[in-house]
Amino acid sequence: MAEVTADLAISLDGFAAGPNQTLDKPMGDGVDQKLHQWMFEQPEENAAELAALASPTAFIMGRNMFSPGRGPWDLAWTGWWGPEPPYHAPVFVLTHHPREPLQMEGTTFTFVTDGIHSAMEQARAAATDGHIGIAGGASTLRQYLQAGLVDQLNLHVVGHVLGAGERLFDGLDGLSLEPVSATGNSLVTHLSYRVRR
Amino acid sequence: MAEVTADLAISLDGFAAGPNQTLDKPMGDGVDQKLHQWMFEQPEENAAELAALASPTAFIMGRNMFSPGRGPWDLAWTGWWGPEPPYHAPVFVLTHHPREPLQMEGTTFTFVTDGIHSAMEQARAAATDGHIGIAGGASTLRQYLQAGLVDQLNLHVVGHVLGAGERLFDGLDGLSLEPVSATGNSLVTHLSYRVRR
Repeated sequence: MAEVTADLAISLDGFAAGPNQTLDKPMGDGVDQKLHQWMFEQPEENAAELAALASPTAFIMGRNMFSPGRGPWDLAWTGWWGPEPPYHAPVFVLTHHPREPLQMEGTTFTFVTDGIHSAMEQARAAATDGHIGIAGGASTLRQYLQAGLVDQLNLHVVGHVLGAGERLFDGLDGLSLEPVSATGNSLVTHLSYRVRR
Repeated sequence: MAEVTADLAISLDGFAAGPNQTLDKPMGDGVDQKLHQWMFEQPEENAAELAALASPTAFIMGRNMFSPGRGPWDLAWTGWWGPEPPYHAPVFVLTHHPREPLQMEGTTFTFVTDGIHSAMEQARAAATDGHIGIAGGASTLRQYLQAGLVDQLNLHVVGHVLGAGERLFDGLDGLSLEPVSATGNSLVTHLSYRVRR
């Protein structure tokens, strides 16, 4: 069976993004780099976690992780990452709006309109070593946790209280996780959990 | 200057208690032992944190930490802990209802009706080595964090999503904490933070 891991950076109060995400403020109001400063400012200190983030051989993400738009596709938009996205693997993007697959350097984005289970089946077929990564955002991860399809959850907790936005754990009452490891540095705490069945 | 530390056990989604706390369900609906199982079932694995919890030489707590009652005092109530409470130090209890000091074995409870700053002054005067512990609950800790009177916050995060109750970080938007240490075991993750000024 495939191993499904999910990584998400969250605030102390559990938000994965602020309210009102736009092209200019992709993380929403009041967030700026707060959730991801550790990636950009301390890549050496966080090298193991950054390597783990990149290790799945297929990824699933929500549409909002791929694009600031919310309606029908603007086909000129090819992701936040430039010509060579950091995935280097097939990425399945959940969306309500059909779009042809998009081939970038090292990464093909396939747009999936028939739901989270279909995206998981396609990711399983594509993952060469059976390791699937759920790349976020919170809403997508929440759906996979609710469906019992996540094996390991890696939270990257930053020391800020945001107070508003999208909360990872909303609606997941009763979810039980077993702590596996806890490490960190002055910018972030890395917490890994196995999902209890 | 006194060192003020605070310890609180919280759920994955940041709750320090469930809704509807009563004498029969002191932690509120749906919580039972979930937040404190690590203390009772694995005291050896968590010995360092339990020792740190007991180390302040004066404590401050909210009234709900001392009593299930919410109105005028029932003087027959002498706390949850039996004849020898675990504090072995002066404890200042925040309340709106005056009550004479209560002498228990090793611990004197003093009831403070004139606010959090008065309780802090009294604790500072009483703490023989200047180390004051804020013993909770969430509402009391939140007030001291808002007032900028906490130096170190020790969170004990258990792997359960509660979904309702009293959230530690509500109303603390903009609070910034620097991670100091992260350790744990299968029942709990211990996260220590310094409060950034």
